[in-house]
Amino acid sequence: MEVNHLSEGIRVAILGATGAVGTELIQLLEERAFPVSQLKLLASPRSAGKTISFRGEALTIEAVSAEAFQDVDLVLASAGGSTSKAWAQTIVDAGAVLVDNSSAFRMDETVPLIVPEINPQAAAQHQGIIANPNCTTILMGLAIFPLHQIQPIQRLIVATYQSASGAGAQAMAEVKAQARAILNEETPPTDAFPYPLAFNVFPHNSPLTEQGYCQEEMKMVKETRKIFDAPELRISATCIRVPVLRAHSEAINLEFAEPFPVGKAKEVLSQAPGVEVREDWENNYFPMPNEATGKDEVFVGRIRQDISHPCGLELWLSGDQIRKGAALNAVQIAELLVKDQLLPTTEKAVSV
Amino acid sequence: MEVNHLSEGIRVAILGATGAVGTELIQLLEERAFPVSQLKLLASPRSAGKTISFRGEALTIEAVSAEAFQDVDLVLASAGGSTSKAWAQTIVDAGAVLVDNSSAFRMDETVPLIVPEINPQAAAQHQGIIANPNCTTILMGLAIFPLHQIQPIQRLIVATYQSASGAGAQAMAEVKAQARAILNEETPPTDAFPYPLAFNVFPHNSPLTEQGYCQEEMKMVKETRKIFDAPELRISATCIRVPVLRAHSEAINLEFAEPFPVGKAKEVLSQAPGVEVREDWENNYFPMPNEATGKDEVFVGRIRQDISHPCGLELWLSGDQIRKGAALNAVQIAELLVKDQLLPTTEKAVSV
Repeated sequence: MEVNHLSEGIRVAILGATGAVGTELIQLLEERAFPVSQLKLLASPRSAGKTISFRGEALTIEAVSAEAFQDVDLVLASAGGSTSKAWAQTIVDAGAVLVDNSSAFRMDETVPLIVPEINPQAAAQHQGIIANPNCTTILMGLAIFPLHQIQPIQRLIVATYQSASGAGAQAMAEVKAQARAILNEETPPTDAFPYPLAFNVFPHNSPLTEQGYCQEEMKMVKETRKIFDAPELRISATCIRVPVLRAHSEAINLEFAEPFPVGKAKEVLSQAPGVEVREDWENNYFPMPNEATGKDEVFVGRIRQDISHPCGLELWLSGDQIRKGAALNAVQIAELLVKDQLLPTTEKAVSV
Repeated sequence: MEVNHLSEGIRVAILGATGAVGTELIQLLEERAFPVSQLKLLASPRSAGKTISFRGEALTIEAVSAEAFQDVDLVLASAGGSTSKAWAQTIVDAGAVLVDNSSAFRMDETVPLIVPEINPQAAAQHQGIIANPNCTTILMGLAIFPLHQIQPIQRLIVATYQSASGAGAQAMAEVKAQARAILNEETPPTDAFPYPLAFNVFPHNSPLTEQGYCQEEMKMVKETRKIFDAPELRISATCIRVPVLRAHSEAINLEFAEPFPVGKAKEVLSQAPGVEVREDWENNYFPMPNEATGKDEVFVGRIRQDISHPCGLELWLSGDQIRKGAALNAVQIAELLVKDQLLPTTEKAVSV
């Protein structure tokens, strides 16, 4: 990436540096050679003093404070909604842009909600905060937006197969500890999860809304509408946790106004950014979460005509929850901010 | 159960006595006090000579042969489609009724396909063979037929979360061995399954049809239509295997011609035979496969108005794949044959 407008690079802070997404953010900044001139790792006081390696250098984690956001251009936050709400104004007042991975600001009308492959143009409207969408929403969006552009989706029914990582690093460790316990005929621990997830599945345990959908499901509904700028899009979601470590899968039924030829859908998706069509019909080989783990792409397959509706399509996807579902999308937003000169310092640089 | 028409009881043979379903069949005959006067356990020559306990007695497994079906009234078969096909005529010629758990005869027009809570009346048409439906089909049927009777279902979209037991006892052992290997950072064995299922999910690996649906999905489509006597019912299914041992779960979207009030649906399902509504909205507690394991009922929950369609309903279920999904349904068919005097010997007894 060229950063010709700001030769000295971007001063970045990561809020929630020790979490599953925070750790991945640090790796991605390094892997993708994001033009970092200074990296601050912020976390709760509990983690302060520990070190994390970045570009071969051991960086010491600082406890989050108002002062920590001084002289920072960009904050990538993944420390939960209440932490983001607590610090957002401080960050904006300090002149930095907050790319927030929590759900705190996603539905705020003044906050762009961005998947760079879908609605990069929305970034220009930011007022200091940009929201990173929900993981299941990002993965689904990548796979269906290219089709939606050809023919607007009329209705969408999705059932998810969500990994433990959606509930954080502790939950990932817990599902392994649960599996070990069950294999040894012991009682599985349930600290991060309300029920055993190993050798089990259960509806996503986010709070239920009055309509009988859980918050995770309503995120898929509302966030997809906002990202697609399709406020009337009809969506129904069933979100289920499965004992997988870090990649989500989704079974998606799409309904269009006119038939959508399967060949056309495959052609469109095979050229779509961030998507890889993975179908070997002869060998019954399709996307699987264990293979999507650690990958940037959303893998899409089993693309087929819905036999229950002449204008329906069915598809199946797997994508890394921590990577494209969270950290990678946030870093791509950061790259977009640099490229389009949407960071305050770059604006300043431009106005000089 | 009364068996006043045949005081000496029924002479039963189990074909495939050593499999996951065969083992459950033997337990259920004992648990439910099925009027067995004689029990023959048949399996491949490999298993001959081994013993299995029934009513406190050690029964010796015999290798299957034509002679073995002489003097038998009822054969409960669960040894795969090719074995059922190979022996069906011999069984019928010997004067016994075959209740077959394989897919071999399910779509044969002369063979009733029965879920006793749904279409017991079809049993009277049998010509020596009755087919036990596919496991996912039975579980779904129990949960949706009571609603279909109130208002015919127009369209149905289902995504499944299928346990290892659907692929047999070896597959159940393999998913545990895979989990153990993965936890120890070793390569998981893949003998029963084409891919690791532990800490993973993948589309059901039954052969794919030209339309892009796998055979398991087409079973849900075709068998449900036959059992419901609704040849035009529009169904689309996505069948996915998940690392669960022996209970399947399903996310089901139903579309009716008119709105179906959620309260009415809950009332109907709470009184439906073989169904238990399990919903604790305050505690986010719904059906889970680990709790459905070993239970007779299909557990249904998260019954809610589909927000994407005014005439839609969403629901979620879990049910034991080996029990109601296979062995229990077969034993219930056997009980129905006794009650309605539909076994050849009982016909003889009646004609005397």
